Amino acid sequence: MRALVFDGNLKVEEQRPAPRIQPGEALIEVRRAGICNTDLEITRGYLDFHGVLGHEFVGTVREVASPEDKDWLGKRVVGEINAACGHCPTCRANRPTHCPNRTTLGIGGLDGAFADYLRLPVVNLVEVPASVPDEQAVFTEPLAASLEILEQIHIRPTDRTLVVGDGKMGLLISQVLRLTGAEVGLLGRHPEKAALVERQGVTFHQGLELAPGEMGYDVVVECTGNGEGLETARSLVRPRGTLVLKSTYHGTPSVPLSMYVVDEINVVGSRCGPFAPALRLLERRLIDVEPLISAEFSLKDGLSAFDAAFGKGNIKVLLKVNS
Amino acid sequence: MRALVFDGNLKVEEQRPAPRIQPGEALIEVRRAGICNTDLEITRGYLDFHGVLGHEFVGTVREVASPEDKDWLGKRVVGEINAACGHCPTCRANRPTHCPNRTTLGIGGLDGAFADYLRLPVVNLVEVPASVPDEQAVFTEPLAASLEILEQIHIRPTDRTLVVGDGKMGLLISQVLRLTGAEVGLLGRHPEKAALVERQGVTFHQGLELAPGEMGYDVVVECTGNGEGLETARSLVRPRGTLVLKSTYHGTPSVPLSMYVVDEINVVGSRCGPFAPALRLLERRLIDVEPLISAEFSLKDGLSAFDAAFGKGNIKVLLKVNS
Repeated sequence: MRALVFDGNLKVEEQRPAPRIQPGEALIEVRRAGICNTDLEITRGYLDFHGVLGHEFVGTVREVASPEDKDWLGKRVVGEINAACGHCPTCRANRPTHCPNRTTLGIGGLDGAFADYLRLPVVNLVEVPASVPDEQAVFTEPLAASLEILEQIHIRPTDRTLVVGDGKMGLLISQVLRLTGAEVGLLGRHPEKAALVERQGVTFHQGLELAPGEMGYDVVVECTGNGEGLETARSLVRPRGTLVLKSTYHGTPSVPLSMYVVDEINVVGSRCGPFAPALRLLERRLIDVEPLISAEFSLKDGLSAFDAAFGKGNIKVLLKVNS
Repeated sequence: MRALVFDGNLKVEEQRPAPRIQPGEALIEVRRAGICNTDLEITRGYLDFHGVLGHEFVGTVREVASPEDKDWLGKRVVGEINAACGHCPTCRANRPTHCPNRTTLGIGGLDGAFADYLRLPVVNLVEVPASVPDEQAVFTEPLAASLEILEQIHIRPTDRTLVVGDGKMGLLISQVLRLTGAEVGLLGRHPEKAALVERQGVTFHQGLELAPGEMGYDVVVECTGNGEGLETARSLVRPRGTLVLKSTYHGTPSVPLSMYVVDEINVVGSRCGPFAPALRLLERRLIDVEPLISAEFSLKDGLSAFDAAFGKGNIKVLLKVNS
């Protein structure tokens, strides 16, 4: 099969063997896949992952290893990216995304979605409703990650919320936060994104600093992934407010932790989220993902797709694999 | 002025004196008003209120008592219906809707909105954005009451929720709950409402009973206002789940409280809610109120409007007053 592989260098392979499924797993023919910042970071050495990249996908189930799973055959699906062991204490406590034995699609120990085929446990799959087209369904994974915030913390309709960082995640998260009825601000560096968010009732800020005596935000979501963005985000949280960390960081940023203590800030790390509600929001047409797509490439043009995804003006770059 | 008055009987008065505003208050010319179940109940003796009925409105500020409020003149507004004293311990603890000295528009101690003019404290007013037309803005009060649920409890995207009762409030609340990403069911008696809610991703149930061993709902919102509906709602909450009481009750229903203890159910009473987020959701076009309007009458036809509102097929009946 064809695959976009990182082995220290990024390259398109034409003749990579298709994955071999294990009991409980499905072989999925990839229809579309999305390039995430994590994919870009991996090509810079993040997590030391070598293999097929990609974890945002929609595809069709083509094979299952166990006869009892045969109803999945032919179904259009998305899939939770953490393949958990299912029997450790963490799994039994219903926290499979934190299973210490997990592999993660295209990120750790498991070849990913930028290929003709991938494998995943059947328990990870969620069928895509017919009314949700591929180019929306491919956003299920990052939308689920955005919803993880609402899973973790109670955001009230009267809260003032702010997203720091106007990249792919920041734009998607501001769309999720607007559903709560709360005030939503987006602090970004790309004024060309202002129109995109403001027609959704989100206020775009280019630079933001509290005046002396001004109250900060109840909830701030950090999506920049750099220490400077983190400190900006922290400075905008009100005392006893909540700071959600939605990005991972290069190395170990130097953090003025005393300010977190003085202001009694609640810090919440946030990663993968629930797929079923993400699909429900797409089916209810409450999230508008298509304006976030800035380019689409075929798999054989995967290197150009990565160049585009690294480019400043681009938001979400999709790979059209089979459809 | 004209007014729809209840003094033991419901009648339209043509020559009622307009309200006289006190310091801190505004005189508001009513544009449109909505008939709520509470209005219907008052005509059956609920709360012993005599005076001008009505508390759901949108209007225009025509006079203010204090010169510092003159910027409000001419503004199109909605208004929080509880006129609080502002200085008791409850008000100082920022719970003005629970002020023990409050009067309540068209419900207790304060003439209401089914009239050419009403009076309210300026602090109760919220300006309506230009993009929200009168026939949507008039839903701000019941929408705010629906949002009070999200203010009080944390509903997670992975929760299974159910609204019991398919009247005006039930329909509005199911629209609010769908924004959370949670599964939403509506248990009702009017199958003709199924199409209305199902196109919004809400599942309509006509009759619902848990099978032995079946798990109940995480959150059930009771909107029937009768003891039988309450018991149905209670029976559908999972152990350690939450039952939101969104209706008031005639008299004192007989309640199998032991079941609440055995199942460790969390009961939350819920009344008035925040106006600003309700207007934000209307401005963001996330709530579709117009299908809920079943008839509109002029103020002089107020008695016919009440007849219609009492009618089985009707959802929300509006009064067009001045516009």
